[in-house]
Amino acid sequence: MAMAMHGARRAMHEYDCEFERLNEEIARRSAKKVGIQLPAGMKRLATEIAENLSKCGVEVIISGNSCYGACDIDENLAAVVDVLFHFGHSPVRTHLNVVFVELRCTIDVKPAVEEALKYLNGSRICITTTVQHVHTLNEVAELLIRSGRHPIIGKVGKKGNEVGGVHAIYDGQVMGCDLRAAMVECDEILFVGSGDFHPTAIAMNVCKRVVSADPFTRRVGVFTPENLIKKRILRVERAMSASSFGIIVSSKSGQFNMQIARNIREKAEKRGIRSFIIMIDDIREEALCNFDLDAFVITACPRLVDTLSVEKPVISVREFEIVMGERKLDELIPKPNAATHSDSELLSKE
Amino acid sequence: MAMAMHGARRAMHEYDCEFERLNEEIARRSAKKVGIQLPAGMKRLATEIAENLSKCGVEVIISGNSCYGACDIDENLAAVVDVLFHFGHSPVRTHLNVVFVELRCTIDVKPAVEEALKYLNGSRICITTTVQHVHTLNEVAELLIRSGRHPIIGKVGKKGNEVGGVHAIYDGQVMGCDLRAAMVECDEILFVGSGDFHPTAIAMNVCKRVVSADPFTRRVGVFTPENLIKKRILRVERAMSASSFGIIVSSKSGQFNMQIARNIREKAEKRGIRSFIIMIDDIREEALCNFDLDAFVITACPRLVDTLSVEKPVISVREFEIVMGERKLDELIPKPNAATHSDSELLSKE
Repeated sequence: MAMAMHGARRAMHEYDCEFERLNEEIARRSAKKVGIQLPAGMKRLATEIAENLSKCGVEVIISGNSCYGACDIDENLAAVVDVLFHFGHSPVRTHLNVVFVELRCTIDVKPAVEEALKYLNGSRICITTTVQHVHTLNEVAELLIRSGRHPIIGKVGKKGNEVGGVHAIYDGQVMGCDLRAAMVECDEILFVGSGDFHPTAIAMNVCKRVVSADPFTRRVGVFTPENLIKKRILRVERAMSASSFGIIVSSKSGQFNMQIARNIREKAEKRGIRSFIIMIDDIREEALCNFDLDAFVITACPRLVDTLSVEKPVISVREFEIVMGERKLDELIPKPNAATHSDSELLSKE
Repeated sequence: MAMAMHGARRAMHEYDCEFERLNEEIARRSAKKVGIQLPAGMKRLATEIAENLSKCGVEVIISGNSCYGACDIDENLAAVVDVLFHFGHSPVRTHLNVVFVELRCTIDVKPAVEEALKYLNGSRICITTTVQHVHTLNEVAELLIRSGRHPIIGKVGKKGNEVGGVHAIYDGQVMGCDLRAAMVECDEILFVGSGDFHPTAIAMNVCKRVVSADPFTRRVGVFTPENLIKKRILRVERAMSASSFGIIVSSKSGQFNMQIARNIREKAEKRGIRSFIIMIDDIREEALCNFDLDAFVITACPRLVDTLSVEKPVISVREFEIVMGERKLDELIPKPNAATHSDSELLSKE
């Protein structure tokens, strides 16, 4: 199963920080105060980036908060600066004073991918990655062809943007809330990138074996869907006997959805289940443990349910619909190669 | 030393929730949406309070975020409700749609205090408490007199409010940022309440032995200042060799102070010390560990420096002034019975 690959120290030269563009933005906006926001794994770059930007004579303020995606803009920081540079994610919405910097990685992905080739069993291989490595996909495809495989890069196209909401914008790009690039006819999936967040999401929602190749550590991970899906089913079954629910709403503007929470509450109350709407910024274990409730439904990022390790069952909106008898439990087992309705699509439907 | 007394489950009948007043406020404001916010130790009451308020036909949303004091209003929640009931703290500022509910505790403090009497060595005893038990201080004084001691209840009077900022409003009441009630001529200090946050603050800043009596668990804790102050001095001495500083600004409106951060940055840069302003909502260990810096200065709640357990030295603004050579290290050793300039006064001076 997964190998967690956290804490790898990143150096600024490993990424394209687009300083020229950032300096232009600063000049164009006559910005005096600049905010910078980075996801946890890249926060180590913050001080170097700050020093670089300071050379323009601006005051730089670094966000020290968690940052889980393009949906997670530090609004408090954005409110006190002229421009906020949000690093590491592709844009999903337009924000007046937020500039997205995708941080394309300059590191060579070949060694990691070559190592991963040893673990791939299938012949038709879907290649997926995060925005940092999306420019390397053709190179990865070449390596697969040379090893006798048939590479496939899943299209996300313009469709995603038309639907609106949280979406990947590059073919082959996956996000916690958008796995379209992995939902293609294939035998197995190769993920190029760090961590187990994305490969776990793919394995579980697409129901295929995923091999991950980390370009930084050159380590390979293998993710098989069976156990992950079994865990999910167990969680939903446990939630079925809950007599009280916490309905968790995120206060992050890109994940805030009070209407879904209200719908859930209505359904629960109709069935005589006590339920409470709880609004949280950073949805972590400790926050949920404070409440004496039997189970929780998360209306924010659909991937949170797989990453939180709380003793009580924590389920997604779609899983809650199963608990309410509106969907069948076997919907949790994705059908390979079908246009699966995964949790990842929930946010885009709103 | 201290015994941590966390996680004690609280029942609603142990507190005066002032439902009559809350219902009046709801009616007076024609509120349809009501937010409720409680500190961690009291969050267990949230669902019961929500159910009670729901009887008026309002929608209740519970804050799941941390809540460290009256300075820590959940602004995101306040923005989406008609009125936010903030429980467990006395008001320090006026907020348009925030109502403070002090949650006076109905539990008998006598058994815990009687137990604490066995541990008090001195004769002139200063009695301190939090807002939950402040109405019991005369009763506590009676018990002390009966045991042959001379009880003293420190005045905080109107002066605090006149100065403005974060302040206790009841005689005998202590807060992390206001220990005036403990800064009186006495031999030892009795603290009536739960946890070690307040007694630690008193012991360290007033430099006296503190005995705590928890009315809920009836457990007694003894807090001696020597080790606490030694730790603080060590921390400051370690910060003296730091060549880079993170200057932490809180985005909590009641703790936000960018000007102090700028002053610190200016001083650091003048001495050739690299420094970076970092804005954080919930200042916890994990947030600081993300940055590759030698030390941190906290411009938010002055008590945070004692509660964070980070490997790097984390110091207060006043301690930073010692590092910069503007104050002497021996200022960290409070002089008993003097009108000590403690860290707790910093916020009130702005």
